[in-house]
Amino acid sequence: MKSMVRNMEGSKQVVLGVDIGGTYTKFGYVDRKGKCLANASMPTNAHQPATQFFNRLRKESRRLFNSLPQKCEWIGIGIGAPNANFYKATIENPPNLSWKFVDVRAELGKYYIIPLAITNDANAAALGEMIFGAAKGMKDFIVITLGTGLGSGIVANGRLIYGADGFAGEIGHTTVDPNGRQCGCGRRGCLEAYCSATGLCRTVQELICNTTEPSELRKVSYEDLSAKMISECALRGDRLAKQAFETCGHILGIKLADSVAHLSPEAIVLSGGVAAAGKLIFEPTKRSLEEHLFPIFRNKVKLIPSRLTESNAAILGASALIWNM
Amino acid sequence: MKSMVRNMEGSKQVVLGVDIGGTYTKFGYVDRKGKCLANASMPTNAHQPATQFFNRLRKESRRLFNSLPQKCEWIGIGIGAPNANFYKATIENPPNLSWKFVDVRAELGKYYIIPLAITNDANAAALGEMIFGAAKGMKDFIVITLGTGLGSGIVANGRLIYGADGFAGEIGHTTVDPNGRQCGCGRRGCLEAYCSATGLCRTVQELICNTTEPSELRKVSYEDLSAKMISECALRGDRLAKQAFETCGHILGIKLADSVAHLSPEAIVLSGGVAAAGKLIFEPTKRSLEEHLFPIFRNKVKLIPSRLTESNAAILGASALIWNM
Repeated sequence: MKSMVRNMEGSKQVVLGVDIGGTYTKFGYVDRKGKCLANASMPTNAHQPATQFFNRLRKESRRLFNSLPQKCEWIGIGIGAPNANFYKATIENPPNLSWKFVDVRAELGKYYIIPLAITNDANAAALGEMIFGAAKGMKDFIVITLGTGLGSGIVANGRLIYGADGFAGEIGHTTVDPNGRQCGCGRRGCLEAYCSATGLCRTVQELICNTTEPSELRKVSYEDLSAKMISECALRGDRLAKQAFETCGHILGIKLADSVAHLSPEAIVLSGGVAAAGKLIFEPTKRSLEEHLFPIFRNKVKLIPSRLTESNAAILGASALIWNM
Repeated sequence: MKSMVRNMEGSKQVVLGVDIGGTYTKFGYVDRKGKCLANASMPTNAHQPATQFFNRLRKESRRLFNSLPQKCEWIGIGIGAPNANFYKATIENPPNLSWKFVDVRAELGKYYIIPLAITNDANAAALGEMIFGAAKGMKDFIVITLGTGLGSGIVANGRLIYGADGFAGEIGHTTVDPNGRQCGCGRRGCLEAYCSATGLCRTVQELICNTTEPSELRKVSYEDLSAKMISECALRGDRLAKQAFETCGHILGIKLADSVAHLSPEAIVLSGGVAAAGKLIFEPTKRSLEEHLFPIFRNKVKLIPSRLTESNAAILGASALIWNM
């Protein structure tokens, strides 16, 4: 892409990647090869107005730029944020942030005239995998982020699918069971109520209730429970913890088979905290996926882990918005 | 697109659209505006080798071309066929045809050097709606064909989604219930086992079994039953027949909400025999769709009927493969 600023002889082009989270905002400068040259974070302080946030971001990112070890040319800003609209460059009613509606282009336009792009975190993750990670060179794939919730980014014909309104890729809110678990979105039976860190914890409670299987997790309150704890427990041989992953993978496989029926992707990339459990989640998911696939799709779709460094994945993904222009 | 044959002064450009069905093959010459200038049909005779079929098609389509009322320039051939692969221009293990594997480019390459494109009938229908019909000007939409089975064609970012292997768009084989009705594909609980002409007939049997509701359909054997008969019955006030449409729409709405969560389309076009029942199917589908949508998608997605003339829809759709190049 063409830079909007003066091309500096011998300098390296970098993009500022920003990941706006409910508590912290991470940012860093990423080069064309996906190397993060410097990164930092600051509290989002989402109770304060968005204008203050973007002013702080400007100062902090300038400070970080000045600390870069070599001469760099800053060519754009890519942002991943909850409920971000790619078309309008807005953030609308983000969960966990009190901002209601933010016109990001107007906020950053006060300070910069370089290219800006914004999308939700799962879409950014998908671009990150396509440009730098596990989906390099692929034209059709899906990224599933198994964090607190279940996010997804879909690429078809080599392009992210934003849909008519900019909000496509909400596989976490497809329906497992119309009469099932309550979801944070107000509906019932959403996939993310079963397949996510939270979903995994809920499944542990269900197994504690429905089975007599002994488990060290019976000593832990729901609020103290985490996906990491369940994973460690399963690795120590706790059968209830293992069953929770089995159930999670079983349901995820059924629903991913639906996604394949729509999109016939070359691969599905699983990323995020729950995916870090490795075999515990990949094996039952793969088994269930193959079992529930329409026959022509069987043994074709790769189920693979992310290849972005976990700590920088969101920054890399956000920067990919600009590198992919 | 550029024509491969000599441009004839004052002539009209036409595309041969071909719809290969299990029993009959329809074909016709379609102009750039979607007007079918002449059409005909011939038995598919799928028990004979494919080579014989394409030889007959060549003769019959030449005869039809010669009968065109004005001077025309034939610029391409678009074909809709079951299990057609867009990338490879092949037909692979088509249900209801005994051809196993057909290299369509090789078969037609013996006779023609004009552009050729082939895809399955539901994808062709989607292109037809985009170029000539209800989805004119749309970049993100889904077409659902409710015939004997449930076919689907998905357009995102203005392009049909073929997926990694050329077979994307099999919404009819997403799962309603992993322990549900047997499907012709060998799996259980596929959407098309509930929502299609066949699915509707099966639901009538279920209602006859599970309810005591009187109905004239209790006098009809399953083999004699048709979607049209159920529709006529419902219009006469038969409550069991109406309930069958309600159930069909309810299930279709739940699964289309999943499709919207993936793709956020501007519209979903319902076409085919069951869609011809109008309000009987559109009303319960729309109600269930809105009820099961993730909140940000509510009241955004249009549910609309096809705008291609039923009798020529498949020919128009097949020709759109070339007009869309």
